[in-house]
Amino acid sequence: MKGKIQPKTLPGFMELLPNEQILFNKMKETIQRTYEQYGFLPLDTPIIEDAKVLLAKAGGETEKQIYRFEKGENDLALRFDLTVPLAKYVTEYYDKLSFPFKRYQIGKVYRGEKPQRGRYREFYQCDVDIIGDGKLSIINDAEIPAIIYNTFKNLGFDEFTICINNRKILNGLFLSLKLENESSEILRIIDKIDKIGSEEVKKELINNIENEKVETIMQFISIDGNNNNKIKALEDMKIENEIFQEGLDELKQIIKFIRIFGVPEENFKIDLTIARGLDYYTGTVYETFLNKYRNLGSICSGGRYDNLAEYYTDRKMPGVGISIGLSRLFFQLIDNNIITAENQSISNVLIVSMTDNYDMCADIARNFRDENLNVQINIEEQKLGKKFKYADKLNVKYVIIIGEDEIKDNVITLKNMYTGEQQTIKLEDAIKIIKEN
Amino acid sequence: MKGKIQPKTLPGFMELLPNEQILFNKMKETIQRTYEQYGFLPLDTPIIEDAKVLLAKAGGETEKQIYRFEKGENDLALRFDLTVPLAKYVTEYYDKLSFPFKRYQIGKVYRGEKPQRGRYREFYQCDVDIIGDGKLSIINDAEIPAIIYNTFKNLGFDEFTICINNRKILNGLFLSLKLENESSEILRIIDKIDKIGSEEVKKELINNIENEKVETIMQFISIDGNNNNKIKALEDMKIENEIFQEGLDELKQIIKFIRIFGVPEENFKIDLTIARGLDYYTGTVYETFLNKYRNLGSICSGGRYDNLAEYYTDRKMPGVGISIGLSRLFFQLIDNNIITAENQSISNVLIVSMTDNYDMCADIARNFRDENLNVQINIEEQKLGKKFKYADKLNVKYVIIIGEDEIKDNVITLKNMYTGEQQTIKLEDAIKIIKEN
Repeated sequence: MKGKIQPKTLPGFMELLPNEQILFNKMKETIQRTYEQYGFLPLDTPIIEDAKVLLAKAGGETEKQIYRFEKGENDLALRFDLTVPLAKYVTEYYDKLSFPFKRYQIGKVYRGEKPQRGRYREFYQCDVDIIGDGKLSIINDAEIPAIIYNTFKNLGFDEFTICINNRKILNGLFLSLKLENESSEILRIIDKIDKIGSEEVKKELINNIENEKVETIMQFISIDGNNNNKIKALEDMKIENEIFQEGLDELKQIIKFIRIFGVPEENFKIDLTIARGLDYYTGTVYETFLNKYRNLGSICSGGRYDNLAEYYTDRKMPGVGISIGLSRLFFQLIDNNIITAENQSISNVLIVSMTDNYDMCADIARNFRDENLNVQINIEEQKLGKKFKYADKLNVKYVIIIGEDEIKDNVITLKNMYTGEQQTIKLEDAIKIIKEN
Repeated sequence: MKGKIQPKTLPGFMELLPNEQILFNKMKETIQRTYEQYGFLPLDTPIIEDAKVLLAKAGGETEKQIYRFEKGENDLALRFDLTVPLAKYVTEYYDKLSFPFKRYQIGKVYRGEKPQRGRYREFYQCDVDIIGDGKLSIINDAEIPAIIYNTFKNLGFDEFTICINNRKILNGLFLSLKLENESSEILRIIDKIDKIGSEEVKKELINNIENEKVETIMQFISIDGNNNNKIKALEDMKIENEIFQEGLDELKQIIKFIRIFGVPEENFKIDLTIARGLDYYTGTVYETFLNKYRNLGSICSGGRYDNLAEYYTDRKMPGVGISIGLSRLFFQLIDNNIITAENQSISNVLIVSMTDNYDMCADIARNFRDENLNVQINIEEQKLGKKFKYADKLNVKYVIIIGEDEIKDNVITLKNMYTGEQQTIKLEDAIKIIKEN
């Protein structure tokens, strides 16, 4: 075998350099940690499922994007989200689960989309869902924004807004206007408001609907002010429709409990223009935006659905949940210089030996690891310059140098690679310095 | 759509119940944490690769087991281990990496094996490898057992043995006996010693090889005693072969440094009968056994290889590494009652409200989460009995009950679900109790 094969990662598949991977994993672990703090149970379903099971609910665009293949006699497919596997799971293990079933799942999903910059065919979703057995308290819909808030807070963000709406308000409005059959089309037009502005939305609506009804819709989507003002304006519209009133009641409840659950007023708002797809969500819907980067689109979305597993069971299982598309979000944050992976290092310290005697190095490493610090011993036969170049490339902040003098005097030389500062001190003092940094 | 689709996870695919998943994740995180403490960088390569790239090195049994399929014009395959993707990665990003490149990867791999009890088609591998550029110090081969030792120690095991051998010793021995062409066959026979015993091994060898040479081989594989005795016995064999001597020198170095790196004498031993496959490994080899469950087979294996990426590049990249097959190991540990998932809970405490007033519940939850504890608020409208049944099913140890009296007096009622003990105390005291447990 003479010719070498060119090793190449497929287009549309994210593969990171180590410093980026460290940062990516930190974000993933922060999300996981936050989900766990709210008591969500971990789940890890297979990536490969029976195509018949996985595609029970799919259709149209999704089905075209699916990775589907045969192996032996099996018709297989790779999961394209984490919601269908959840529906499968709660149906299959119903008897062994306790409801409300709160689970998180963080894992890769697959969609054979046309590769574009920042759009991946393999990407991480980080989901939480709360599934009820028959019913599920509306207060859960208020806990979800608290989870979104704490997740992004823990990720280091301050200026973001969780936008909340309720599909029942939209549906009730359309019913009251006898526009229920046009609702998809109207929602599609309203959805463009961020891109084309309200004047253009109005023009498009007038092409389809009677003027007077357009006025009501425009009045509705232009409702402004703080959350209390919006609720008041919705009440003042005096829409005589049960579903509208139900949605409004739910929204009022949710706003009340969001406050109780500690989400600051500046981090959430009622946004009557968001609708999130057309069929799936039946009540509350969420989208989340970075205030200064609204152009990135929603970075965390979800909502309430009446019936999670209707394709698998007659049992009614309502749920509410959200998803963070982490791979895409990570790409966007790096691409817009909102975060940087430049100084990421897995090791807290690199130990460099100037002699053949590794006893002291091993002893030091053990002491650091006992303190839950990460430490690497450089054990290659290299010149000192090369060892420091290696440390540089690893972005490691501290290097410990052990030569004959250090061994004799039972001290260590600690170099801060960021400042160049170097000092010869006792091991305990070095541990203290590194733990504090 | 009237008929429901039967939701069913494919055979050979591990899917755990929440309490099992909690334990599985704890083990996975312990392994990850230990790998990081040694300064290994994280890596997360795609599960789907170009089949041509992935199968460059494969053949025979592996190729038959591979999940391979087409999507559009692409010939794709799912990774069957984490080593080939590593070879791809270090070649593709060579200029951007610093060597020795120390990486860990924990992820799912796919092999379409015949489903058997405890054998999975999708399973986790947890790998560490150290890759050199041109050369790699033998001391790395001694750090690997230290990593194995600390990993299993951190997983809660004490009685395990890391078995170490060096392929050069075996190869040198065969060369000195002019049996190099029979070496695969001989190794295959020797490998069965655990199953069939040394007498049967001897009989099989005699069928193939001259008596006198069999005597030397039997003398070799029956070398016994402690590690120092074994080294002495190998020296005493006076095998005049350069490769044998090189292997012996390496083994002596490794044993010296394993001790320096702090692996206790009872947790490692030279085992001249282990060979680990035939082509891949070129020097040190490792297998790890639970002393009381040797029948489980090796729970962590690996070794030294001269040339990681020879199918992709002319650059010589020697490496040393190990792999833990976590899915299978987890199955075996549960199946043999070595570990149990029975009492696993993600939440430290469940808060149960007896009133409609959730302010205090939310406040308590926030206090717990600030202490890095996991807490769930039960917000369903259920009778108290049902709430406690829910707590029971979650295996949660502590329940906090908030009724009108608690709100009035600003205290909480804490119930230990394991002992039934119940006390009404201040929040700070409850936090203290739960943190200590």
